[in-house]
Amino acid sequence: MQSDLLEMLRDVEPSLLKNFPNSKKVYKNGSRDDIKVPFRKIDLEDNSSIYVYDTMGVYTDPEVKIDLTKGIKQVRKAWIKERKNIEELNDFSSKYFYKRCENENLRNIRFPNIKKPKCAKNGKNITQMHLAKKGIITPEMEFVAIRENQKLQNIKENGLLTKQHRGENFGAQIPEFYTPEFVRDEIASGRAVLPANINHPECEPMIIGRNFMVKINANIGNSATTSSIAEEVEKMIWSVRWGGDTVMDLSTGANIHETREWIIRNSPVPIGTVPIYQALEKVNGIAENLTWEIFRDTLIEQAEQGVDYFTIHAGVRLKYIPMTAKRLTGIVSRGGSIMAKWCLFHHKESFLYEHFEDICEIMKAYDVAFSLGDGLRPGSIYDANDEAQFAELETLGELTKIAWKHDVQVMIEGPGHVPMHMIKENMTKELKKCFEAPFYTLGPLITDIAPGYDHITSAIGAAQIGWYGTSMLCYVTPKEHLGLPNKEDVREGIVTYKIAAHAADLAKGYPGAQIRDNAMSKARFEFRWNDQFNIGFDPDRAREFHDKTLPKENLKTAHFCSMCGPKFCSMKITEDVRKYTKNDN
Amino acid sequence: MQSDLLEMLRDVEPSLLKNFPNSKKVYKNGSRDDIKVPFRKIDLEDNSSIYVYDTMGVYTDPEVKIDLTKGIKQVRKAWIKERKNIEELNDFSSKYFYKRCENENLRNIRFPNIKKPKCAKNGKNITQMHLAKKGIITPEMEFVAIRENQKLQNIKENGLLTKQHRGENFGAQIPEFYTPEFVRDEIASGRAVLPANINHPECEPMIIGRNFMVKINANIGNSATTSSIAEEVEKMIWSVRWGGDTVMDLSTGANIHETREWIIRNSPVPIGTVPIYQALEKVNGIAENLTWEIFRDTLIEQAEQGVDYFTIHAGVRLKYIPMTAKRLTGIVSRGGSIMAKWCLFHHKESFLYEHFEDICEIMKAYDVAFSLGDGLRPGSIYDANDEAQFAELETLGELTKIAWKHDVQVMIEGPGHVPMHMIKENMTKELKKCFEAPFYTLGPLITDIAPGYDHITSAIGAAQIGWYGTSMLCYVTPKEHLGLPNKEDVREGIVTYKIAAHAADLAKGYPGAQIRDNAMSKARFEFRWNDQFNIGFDPDRAREFHDKTLPKENLKTAHFCSMCGPKFCSMKITEDVRKYTKNDN
Repeated sequence: MQSDLLEMLRDVEPSLLKNFPNSKKVYKNGSRDDIKVPFRKIDLEDNSSIYVYDTMGVYTDPEVKIDLTKGIKQVRKAWIKERKNIEELNDFSSKYFYKRCENENLRNIRFPNIKKPKCAKNGKNITQMHLAKKGIITPEMEFVAIRENQKLQNIKENGLLTKQHRGENFGAQIPEFYTPEFVRDEIASGRAVLPANINHPECEPMIIGRNFMVKINANIGNSATTSSIAEEVEKMIWSVRWGGDTVMDLSTGANIHETREWIIRNSPVPIGTVPIYQALEKVNGIAENLTWEIFRDTLIEQAEQGVDYFTIHAGVRLKYIPMTAKRLTGIVSRGGSIMAKWCLFHHKESFLYEHFEDICEIMKAYDVAFSLGDGLRPGSIYDANDEAQFAELETLGELTKIAWKHDVQVMIEGPGHVPMHMIKENMTKELKKCFEAPFYTLGPLITDIAPGYDHITSAIGAAQIGWYGTSMLCYVTPKEHLGLPNKEDVREGIVTYKIAAHAADLAKGYPGAQIRDNAMSKARFEFRWNDQFNIGFDPDRAREFHDKTLPKENLKTAHFCSMCGPKFCSMKITEDVRKYTKNDN
Repeated sequence: MQSDLLEMLRDVEPSLLKNFPNSKKVYKNGSRDDIKVPFRKIDLEDNSSIYVYDTMGVYTDPEVKIDLTKGIKQVRKAWIKERKNIEELNDFSSKYFYKRCENENLRNIRFPNIKKPKCAKNGKNITQMHLAKKGIITPEMEFVAIRENQKLQNIKENGLLTKQHRGENFGAQIPEFYTPEFVRDEIASGRAVLPANINHPECEPMIIGRNFMVKINANIGNSATTSSIAEEVEKMIWSVRWGGDTVMDLSTGANIHETREWIIRNSPVPIGTVPIYQALEKVNGIAENLTWEIFRDTLIEQAEQGVDYFTIHAGVRLKYIPMTAKRLTGIVSRGGSIMAKWCLFHHKESFLYEHFEDICEIMKAYDVAFSLGDGLRPGSIYDANDEAQFAELETLGELTKIAWKHDVQVMIEGPGHVPMHMIKENMTKELKKCFEAPFYTLGPLITDIAPGYDHITSAIGAAQIGWYGTSMLCYVTPKEHLGLPNKEDVREGIVTYKIAAHAADLAKGYPGAQIRDNAMSKARFEFRWNDQFNIGFDPDRAREFHDKTLPKENLKTAHFCSMCGPKFCSMKITEDVRKYTKNDN
């Protein structure tokens, strides 16, 4: 079926390996040679340049030869090893993992260079949170501090570009410059998560917390009938190219184990999953046949592959399920509905809730972070902020405390469908009930009635909740509620969410957030068209749209815009106005 | 050049005359036979139906034969006539108008059935505001009251659909049901505008005010080199089809007089313009050659054609212009920069400001409403909420009082580029400084760095400011800052703004706003796919997206979604959960 997979993957589409026009990857060094933090440097036609956050990984490093069958560079390998708190296992701890590796029929689609898994040494707690609580600054933390210091990187530029409005941040504590100590303290307090499975050394460290830049997640994944491994790997690379800070692999179809291996080995960003999806596959889709043992094995399987965070719907308790009966749209979370069905069928408390400490034990052995799923999130405006939703949130807070006792990192998933005036309550309640653990929301969508445009309905809500304090926004594509996103939908979804996250950064007063806006506006005022395209989130589309009206290359320096023509250009007239004002004085 | 124009316009593209699937136009009668208020009735597969606000005009009335060369039905003709306060003029009062009509070279592009203009009888004030202040309820007011009563039209439906969250409306006074008296009082107080030039009897009355449904405006218009008359007329029809509540004709090229005539004669929604654009054409684009006499003649020319509201940048005063010198992007409003240039060149106060009472005299003779332009709006995040912007706003408030003294209706234009946390201040200041006159904003865009996606950057701001109290949102298309929008851009811009406006209605608690959301979510939960497409803002796109994954017609009733397949559908599982819960009891 996919005998040519290796061939397909060996030749990465060249366009994926090309940086945006006038952009190049640069690295800033940390306190040691192997801390090399990537930035994208955009060179401008006025001989200045700006540095922006870079999620593209090695793919846009011209010095690096990409071979997907080998996996990308393991930037964290030495750091993980030198801590001396882990051991390499001789074999996979998951029975399923073992079986898949033994299966000769999978040879054609299997990642060819699977490495031995690593695990915490007996009695050792290896999580970033544990180390932070002990006062240790890991290379990962230093990496992140440098990465968040966009303002510092840009400060040598002229004053105009670094000037910024004071934000309104609802009690967040955003520093002017980031230090490794600050990063450490945020992780130690639980206010931030640094997802970093020891089995995903390829991952460039990043941080999720409301005192940092707002992040976005892109979902990929095949389902029963569509999409191949090569397509999913390509979607992952595509996602980081456009700015995805993490990627969730939500595959539910065949070969999801093998797909995941390919994705993780080649991903420079943290990978999240919803393990219950695969567990359900293992019981042929019959929710009531799920057991703790199958789920446990799935967690270990995925932890040893290198998944950085798990969505776990442990807050869907038996007693909350009847609360959904009066809803208009019931339970819309897949994981939530699977667990609800299980609980009702057995008339028993959720095994995820009952075994929560066991789950913590597994996760801390690999430093997998929790993304506590909102299985009872509202799926319609009608159901927003209801009893079921907030009852679950209360439980997520209780579970957060348990996870933190084990020094396992936690973020909290949030809704869903919520009208604008009810968004704030979600954030306020989350901060209170979940002790400021980072909030990670899906939108929210602020209306139900725009299928085909739900990247927009949700970005409106996402921008707001990001401003209020949400740390990571899970993107929604135009195909939401209708079908599976293709590559163009992924691009549209990511850029839309980059807008929402950046709008939140501006409103919160994230240091340096406004530099790029200022650079854009200066380029606009000075009619530097190429710079306008290149500074934006999607240089390709901006250029394409501009060229539809004014295709000629010499018009890229024209002192008027294509909308109005030379006589009516307000910027042109303003230039004249300034000349008059000067002469007046 | 356009000899086949009549031919082109005689055959309206059939797709423009077709309602959305399962939608039909219905009329609700008022107190007299000739008050027939349109609604779009969407029939659903569960034998219910919902009524939604209908901007499509006669174009989707299968009983009406469209002939664009004759103009559409004059629904207000009798109402205007029976008030006996106007007279038909023997000739056009504008010299320019007269000249254009005499010019034989324009025969091929001239609207063939130009009617004699009407004007207030000497000594009569004919504005809706004047009549409202005198306690009179006009047929236009009654029409609007019925039109805003979406909840009333839908109330016979089951209780679930009409249930709605209580909104948060920042001091707006939104009634549960609308009465003609309420409409009258809102117009009398200046809190709402009913744009209704007596020379645009084709217009179906609508209202703009923060105690009513939030409206959206779509801009069309040719520029120096692009677009023909037929294209612009088609764009107008296209705009009302997708939900544009008003249309602004921003043409700046050749034949804008003739283009406007074609548009107005065929427009069921109010038409706005920026008269200074045409005045500038008349002096060959040389701003300093503008005179009050040329501007005055242009106002009369356009008022006698039937323009319903004029953007007039009378707030750009000489003393404010130096305030823009320290800006990053100076003056970005075209009208604002033209006036700034004029003021500086002559070192004189703006003739628009000096002649403001004269302008009121003209406007009240035809009931043209003011849209007081924000010529000093910020064009970048950097310039948001600055001294120049708010100084102008103060003057707009002063001018509002003068206009109201003449009983001329007023709305106030707003920004622009504003980060999220600074949006609220714009609304608060506008309400205070301009005495609650309706606010009409362009976005605001909440970041500068997404050219190609500015419909989204601006919709995020528009939804918020709409919630805070803005009455009408001026759309932005994906081509903003890059080029002129084509038909698809117009559609994208309008649907995006329908989302923003509707989100604001939901958040404010506009009565009945949630009915459509509830109907959508119910259809979603019951797997009625066709209904989901048809209830949405863009049925065509929703169907197209769905069919890309699951094209087969029999899957339109499938009890699972295309994203997850049958095993993983949460809604399907929820159905099962409900069955269990029932058996449990």
